[in-house]
Amino acid sequence: MAKTNPGRFFEDYSVGQILTHAVPRTISGGERALYHALYPARHALYSSDEFARNCGLPQSPIDDLAAFHVVFGKTVPDVSLNAVANLGYAEGRWLLPVYPGDTLRSESEVIGLKQNSNGKTGVVWVRTRGLNQRDEVVIEYVRWVMVRKSDPNAPAPETVVPELKGAVDAADLVVPKGLDFSRYDFVQSGESHRWDEYKTGEMIDHVDGVTIEEAEHMLATRLWQNTAKVHFDLTFRPEGRLIYGGHVISMARALSFNGLANAQMIVGLNGGAHANPCFAGDTVKAWTEVLDKAETDAPGVGAIRLRLVATKGGEPFALKTEDGKYRPEVLLDLDYWALMPM
Amino acid sequence: MAKTNPGRFFEDYSVGQILTHAVPRTISGGERALYHALYPARHALYSSDEFARNCGLPQSPIDDLAAFHVVFGKTVPDVSLNAVANLGYAEGRWLLPVYPGDTLRSESEVIGLKQNSNGKTGVVWVRTRGLNQRDEVVIEYVRWVMVRKSDPNAPAPETVVPELKGAVDAADLVVPKGLDFSRYDFVQSGESHRWDEYKTGEMIDHVDGVTIEEAEHMLATRLWQNTAKVHFDLTFRPEGRLIYGGHVISMARALSFNGLANAQMIVGLNGGAHANPCFAGDTVKAWTEVLDKAETDAPGVGAIRLRLVATKGGEPFALKTEDGKYRPEVLLDLDYWALMPM
Amino acid sequence: MAKTNPGRFFEDYSVGQILTHAVPRTISGGERALYHALYPARHALYSSDEFARNCGLPQSPIDDLAAFHVVFGKTVPDVSLNAVANLGYAEGRWLLPVYPGDTLRSESEVIGLKQNSNGKTGVVWVRTRGLNQRDEVVIEYVRWVMVRKSDPNAPAPETVVPELKGAVDAADLVVPKGLDFSRYDFVQSGESHRWDEYKTGEMIDHVDGVTIEEAEHMLATRLWQNTAKVHFDLTFRPEGRLIYGGHVISMARALSFNGLANAQMIVGLNGGAHANPCFAGDTVKAWTEVLDKAETDAPGVGAIRLRLVATKGGEPFALKTEDGKYRPEVLLDLDYWALMPM
Repeated sequence: MAKTNPGRFFEDYSVGQILTHAVPRTISGGERALYHALYPARHALYSSDEFARNCGLPQSPIDDLAAFHVVFGKTVPDVSLNAVANLGYAEGRWLLPVYPGDTLRSESEVIGLKQNSNGKTGVVWVRTRGLNQRDEVVIEYVRWVMVRKSDPNAPAPETVVPELKGAVDAADLVVPKGLDFSRYDFVQSGESHRWDEYKTGEMIDHVDGVTIEEAEHMLATRLWQNTAKVHFDLTFRPEGRLIYGGHVISMARALSFNGLANAQMIVGLNGGAHANPCFAGDTVKAWTEVLDKAETDAPGVGAIRLRLVATKGGEPFALKTEDGKYRPEVLLDLDYWALMPM
Repeated sequence: MAKTNPGRFFEDYSVGQILTHAVPRTISGGERALYHALYPARHALYSSDEFARNCGLPQSPIDDLAAFHVVFGKTVPDVSLNAVANLGYAEGRWLLPVYPGDTLRSESEVIGLKQNSNGKTGVVWVRTRGLNQRDEVVIEYVRWVMVRKSDPNAPAPETVVPELKGAVDAADLVVPKGLDFSRYDFVQSGESHRWDEYKTGEMIDHVDGVTIEEAEHMLATRLWQNTAKVHFDLTFRPEGRLIYGGHVISMARALSFNGLANAQMIVGLNGGAHANPCFAGDTVKAWTEVLDKAETDAPGVGAIRLRLVATKGGEPFALKTEDGKYRPEVLLDLDYWALMPM
Repeated sequence: MAKTNPGRFFEDYSVGQILTHAVPRTISGGERALYHALYPARHALYSSDEFARNCGLPQSPIDDLAAFHVVFGKTVPDVSLNAVANLGYAEGRWLLPVYPGDTLRSESEVIGLKQNSNGKTGVVWVRTRGLNQRDEVVIEYVRWVMVRKSDPNAPAPETVVPELKGAVDAADLVVPKGLDFSRYDFVQSGESHRWDEYKTGEMIDHVDGVTIEEAEHMLATRLWQNTAKVHFDLTFRPEGRLIYGGHVISMARALSFNGLANAQMIVGLNGGAHANPCFAGDTVKAWTEVLDKAETDAPGVGAIRLRLVATKGGEPFALKTEDGKYRPEVLLDLDYWALMPM
């Protein structure tokens, strides 16, 4: 009867269900400018049309994570409005660059359900796709969340736990059509380090830090049309507005420019955990571990698999405690593939 | 002699005077992106070129309230720099959508004057028009403010109190040329509720809230080139910067998406009161009362008259105290017409 | 071995060295909208395509200081990452307007070096050029900074102190091609005061003030891709994030609209000192002294040389103490040329 959206509860999902998410969005240079004001984003391919053309693209795309946030934001009212926890990501791939003028929309398929033993909550797995105005899939990823039941007596659904890959196979990564790093400009990009110079197991401390302000994370979160009230309403969360996990992802990725300026395009999201909540006043820093490397068919283009860790204190490279839990200062543990000149 | 603008005082106005306001502004996708970062604005017609085209428009216009703020901001140096109070709005109409690339300017005609009995202040009524680069009127509205006299001994002008309509007649609302809601996409818009489902007298609690930050309201107010110092200078107002009333209007309107996602285009401003001042730290929430409904000649397009109330606490639907005054937590009482699919 | 950029130290510079700065940037309407949200910028030539066309330009350029910040931001990793102090500017000229769609990059030539007597630091002079995608120089200026030595035992370089002009000669100012103020609209520009009405020695108090917020100066500084950690990381500077000097320049220039609305285009930067640091919470005000005037060959276009002073308190027009030092409330002392209708 109420016309406001109460969000979906655990019993409202069924495996195979398609959720068509609302509010398509046309991207402009405004979104790019804001992304670069909100994060210290400097990857040259996303900053300069000239640089992008020199790499074989028609112009500079919107930052990959900005495109991700636009796609993700639309899913919030249907997937995570009543979520207790954002549990993980897997099998994420960027399939097409997004350019100013493109219009994005999102849809998700429910691919798994498992009621928790307490009977009050359950885990929902969705595979989300972002599509452009030509109905081409630009991004896809799996995400799973713990959602409350509205009626604790609602019957448990059949348990379906999807089999998910631990990481996207390098062979499944999609290199944007035309991408060519053979004339890559290592001066204009900001660093001379190429794919060949990074070794599996190498650790990079990105050195820089940013102390987060309330106004900034709210601007960012609204820009992606993610309106979950935990991010905005201090009367709802007097202990502090919870910062959208994607804000931490983008901040850490932008900080990683310092040491990974040539890890230009994000093409795969293997996994990710928001280890601890982030609040205004926290100073976000980042470090990276090189997990893997692979070649691609595109000229001069290598793939590099990176663990990006964001922290709010502590020493670089410290991730977990002796009992295997994330250290309290760790905010994010993200596993992704990027494309880099060889 | 001083070259700075002291603003106009009450004795500087005369009925029939035309005030041509300064600093025209060309709108781009940047203004739209910022509007969507500053407010949780999600109405699909203002978010997606594809959605707008499906509704018969050439592309997605700038949010109606953004256009209003651009027009309004220009009037501040000439109308309200020495204003003691912003008393009301009436007879507001949106006559043409504003698109990226359009350049807006504003002019006002003084249509009423009434000196107050204390001899120190007076009320000035102006009818303001926003025009585009083709000299077409895109917005018009009446606003009245209480303005200080510079010289208390200046003679009182003849009292002229304009007759203003309590509400814009539905027949006088202007539906944008080509608007057609007959193929309206209720999935992409975010809610299934159509014009037919709303009843006069219906009350909607929009549920969500946003705690306001200083940086955000200043960004917004500057974007509209409204530079009244009460909004910016803590040495001028040590008790707290007064938040531009339009910031509260836009915040409440954006919050009203939740329950009124299909109240797409604002076409009439019947009245409005800034009941109490808003300061950083306040949490803005909103509720709506359906006041009236009307049909239009455009295919599938209905008009709905809404009272939008913004609060900073208290229970939804509580507006006035027993003695007829606004409750202290009420920030805004706005009466407007919107267009909605039938 | 570390892949992060440690910045250059004093011994890493040599006279004649060319520093090609990284990360070119394509400008869009987004940067303009953000500039107008961050500063109370209202100069009509930078706000309206129509106004700019009426002045003989093809469209409204990006604010001159926004273009300056884009060029300047790129130099930070190569010039001032290890700077102890930003000592001065000279011989700055704007040579071409920057329009949305232009891509800017920067390069600097080291033109002077002088080790300090303490042997731990030295002064580095660079001449920086901003270039567009057609390799045209759009801005050039000299800047000198005090930089730490990494190795105190590194030998001192030969001292080279460049001869710099105290001010750009009026004859060397470049008026944008086609600029014509003969049909200038003094109503739409916001003030009636023309070049003829300003007198050398005249002092103008710009009256308005803005209390600075952390979120705003960080958004601005990141937008220019200036990522010096002193501006962002409270754990690095627990006493408060130092506000980028360019933020104060832009704030003061925008405030100077009130009294100098027709000082439209900045064409020369004669000198500048960041007299004292600025922190969030400071309220920035500004005053101007008219230093000089000159005619130009362009129709209706005069040049005016202005001292722009930004303060965080105190009385207008107070600049130095009896012993010749800047008063503690003075933030900025900037000397520039602007173009104004005659």
